[in-house]
Amino acid sequence: MSEPLIRLAEIHEHNREAGTFWVYRGDRVYDITDWVPNHPGGEVILRAVGGSIEPYWNIFTIHQNQDVYDILEQYFIGNIDPRDLVDGKAPAGLVDDPFKSDPERDSSLMVRSSRPCNAETPASELGTFITPAEKFYVRNHLWVPDVGDAEDHRLTIELIDGEEVTYSVADLRKNFREYNITATLQCSGNRRAHMTAGSRPTNGLQWQIGAISTATWTGVRLRDVLAHAGVDLNEPDEDIKHAQFVGAEAYGASISFDKAIDRHGDVMLVYAMNGQALPRDHGYPLRVLVPGHVAARSVKWLNKVILSGDESTSQWQKRDYKCFGPNVASHNVNWDDAPAIQETPVQSAITGVRQVKGDRLRDSDLARVYGLEEESVVLEGYAFAGGGREIIRVDVSPDNGKTWWQAQLLPHDKDVHDDNQKAWAWKQWRLALPTHALHEHFCVKAVDESYNSQPEQFDAFYNFRGNLANGWHRVPVSSRSKD
Amino acid sequence: MSEPLIRLAEIHEHNREAGTFWVYRGDRVYDITDWVPNHPGGEVILRAVGGSIEPYWNIFTIHQNQDVYDILEQYFIGNIDPRDLVDGKAPAGLVDDPFKSDPERDSSLMVRSSRPCNAETPASELGTFITPAEKFYVRNHLWVPDVGDAEDHRLTIELIDGEEVTYSVADLRKNFREYNITATLQCSGNRRAHMTAGSRPTNGLQWQIGAISTATWTGVRLRDVLAHAGVDLNEPDEDIKHAQFVGAEAYGASISFDKAIDRHGDVMLVYAMNGQALPRDHGYPLRVLVPGHVAARSVKWLNKVILSGDESTSQWQKRDYKCFGPNVASHNVNWDDAPAIQETPVQSAITGVRQVKGDRLRDSDLARVYGLEEESVVLEGYAFAGGGREIIRVDVSPDNGKTWWQAQLLPHDKDVHDDNQKAWAWKQWRLALPTHALHEHFCVKAVDESYNSQPEQFDAFYNFRGNLANGWHRVPVSSRSKD
Repeated sequence: MSEPLIRLAEIHEHNREAGTFWVYRGDRVYDITDWVPNHPGGEVILRAVGGSIEPYWNIFTIHQNQDVYDILEQYFIGNIDPRDLVDGKAPAGLVDDPFKSDPERDSSLMVRSSRPCNAETPASELGTFITPAEKFYVRNHLWVPDVGDAEDHRLTIELIDGEEVTYSVADLRKNFREYNITATLQCSGNRRAHMTAGSRPTNGLQWQIGAISTATWTGVRLRDVLAHAGVDLNEPDEDIKHAQFVGAEAYGASISFDKAIDRHGDVMLVYAMNGQALPRDHGYPLRVLVPGHVAARSVKWLNKVILSGDESTSQWQKRDYKCFGPNVASHNVNWDDAPAIQETPVQSAITGVRQVKGDRLRDSDLARVYGLEEESVVLEGYAFAGGGREIIRVDVSPDNGKTWWQAQLLPHDKDVHDDNQKAWAWKQWRLALPTHALHEHFCVKAVDESYNSQPEQFDAFYNFRGNLANGWHRVPVSSRSKD
Repeated sequence: MSEPLIRLAEIHEHNREAGTFWVYRGDRVYDITDWVPNHPGGEVILRAVGGSIEPYWNIFTIHQNQDVYDILEQYFIGNIDPRDLVDGKAPAGLVDDPFKSDPERDSSLMVRSSRPCNAETPASELGTFITPAEKFYVRNHLWVPDVGDAEDHRLTIELIDGEEVTYSVADLRKNFREYNITATLQCSGNRRAHMTAGSRPTNGLQWQIGAISTATWTGVRLRDVLAHAGVDLNEPDEDIKHAQFVGAEAYGASISFDKAIDRHGDVMLVYAMNGQALPRDHGYPLRVLVPGHVAARSVKWLNKVILSGDESTSQWQKRDYKCFGPNVASHNVNWDDAPAIQETPVQSAITGVRQVKGDRLRDSDLARVYGLEEESVVLEGYAFAGGGREIIRVDVSPDNGKTWWQAQLLPHDKDVHDDNQKAWAWKQWRLALPTHALHEHFCVKAVDESYNSQPEQFDAFYNFRGNLANGWHRVPVSSRSKD
């Protein structure tokens, strides 16, 4: 029995206003109604229904693989009527480019993908404790939503009984105590390029050392807002296990409810960054800040918080941001075998290597610290651990790991953290080494307050998604620049 | 000018009842009054004053090194009058043996030192989730104090204003809610012998894999008792930073006040272990349990809790239980450069390797899990992380780290932990591997929920005290026993 022929006009009727959703690819037509609730990317897929899926897949190129084609084929219902074909093809149609209102970006950012925008902070900007907002790395999963005026934006809190409480940004500013938290955000893919180079190919954006930045975030505590919305923080409903966050562009993720209401967890609803309104790339007018967790949980353009017994069902919670053993690959992974990445492991990187002449060094602070008078090399970098665990030591090797020196940890964070706050921000470090000690590679590894550290190599910690690549950062000693 | 000659009778007068304290060593006399408050071991030193220090140093042999001799020489005041010497030596005197009332121990424990008793759990007993109390590793810093009846024992809480509140064990049982917490305790020296073998000599008891055990502990929450004693848990005095613990034998240590009162921290005052009264070796009649922290903070024979702005000043807080870089040695260490070990890093070990014939395996649960029918090797072990961070994966290599398999994590802990409790107990794991895959060494490494793991080698994480030795555990494939 042959499949029916379908007119384009009929396909157009099965659009987002309809109860059933059709798309076409080439001259083949699919009824994806049953797939929509299962789409890992959420309701974004409704942008395509009633027309061709291809322009969207040209944008979201993650779909251009056989697994996705196979899923689509399950929903095949017929071919396009040849009368609607031109040169044997259906018209692709005009796509409303979702990226057309993306903001301009600083030209020094190192672009890893432009649509969606993913761009890392250049190494030259990783040496300052607070990253200027325009130099802060950008990690967008979709487009930057145009939410209009902050005045019109609304945050809805959905309680466990389904009741909803809604706040404007002005409500948040007016009714709750304001806090400033200086915190580092790091993408789970930071240094993925090093895992690829040190072991095998990985799936994902090939970030170098700049998918990490630090800012001072201003906003209100999520726990205070939840209490106001009706949550009993002392004896909360035991059914609440997770706090899910939904962004205006359809991104979603969740954290544990314990973290969400932890008095020392500092989870915030943020409306300002480094003393200015949030830039659009960083979540204007409202985002979550989950300090100590992978940045993927700090949802931008926040419009909903859902208290739930379940994690977010998004692909970014259930799939992408997980790690597996080195023996697991995309063809044999069981995504449920690993928990979503929340707190991140110890990380560090070398951001600068400068050759310094003895006569310059002699009068410097480095000479006072290290007492070096000969020709030296000055290394600088960052170190960071998740969970608010403070970096207590940074070990640097001038000879590929044979001998080790302790770097000086710079005290910047003392200016922004009070005693009772966890270590939410990176530590910056520096070290002067005599030139005669250099051999092959500089290496750096950091140690946090629970005395966890970083793996020596990438092979044994390889994961096919290339997440949490925290093997020792190695830089050839030949790479030093003259001062 | 010659030093004065001193009669033995005069030395005897400067005993612990006196205001000044003298000791002698050989025929040299020392006034150590000014040293007593600085003695890293606390007031234990007063046992020796008024007589010879040598019998004590023969027991506490840590003193038999030049650093200690040099300290003592600073307090030299004269020589013993030759009239009191016999064959040119002063009588050593009779020492009241502090270890004479130590309890009998299970003969299967592997003794690393007998006075004080330090003995590890044999590998054959590390395969059960709950370690029987008599097989639980013993780590004593001094003797086991004879505290008499539990009825007579008192716990004193010293508040920040100096006020004291005293409780009997019966008071604790009667006035506070009782909790059972199943938690693993691990000595910071566990696997120190592996660091020594894998890198260089380390100072300290050369523990193998058995300085770790798990029990169900029964008692009351420290936070509840502190609240009763007058501490405002919601708005505590900001001067309180630490909770110090003092044991009846003079051992002392401290934890952060935040941990002490954390609702999810489960710090307990414990009077029972695996359903029975605490054995004397494990703190009878009362000890602290600090789950997720190095065992050195779970002070035994507890008789005092001091809320303070400062850490404990004991050597076990300020010196012994710290880690430094591989380049730091006892002659150049600055003990203040590192924080006291509290939460511990990821750890794992192989506790058993058995050759299993296919026909035995076929009907077993392992075959159902792994589907192996050929001749196989079954590995078993434990994995544990500090801070209540759950072990999420155990990777085992049959070929020295070239390929990796994921072990099955046994679900025992689900029986004892409720959903809202952190992972205070180890995970036990097992894995069947086909014999043909074996090459050189088995290796194991675990991963915790913050995706921290363990170092591949010991060299780059060597520390001269040999603490927190958590390099991959390697066992020769030739070591397997026939089943």
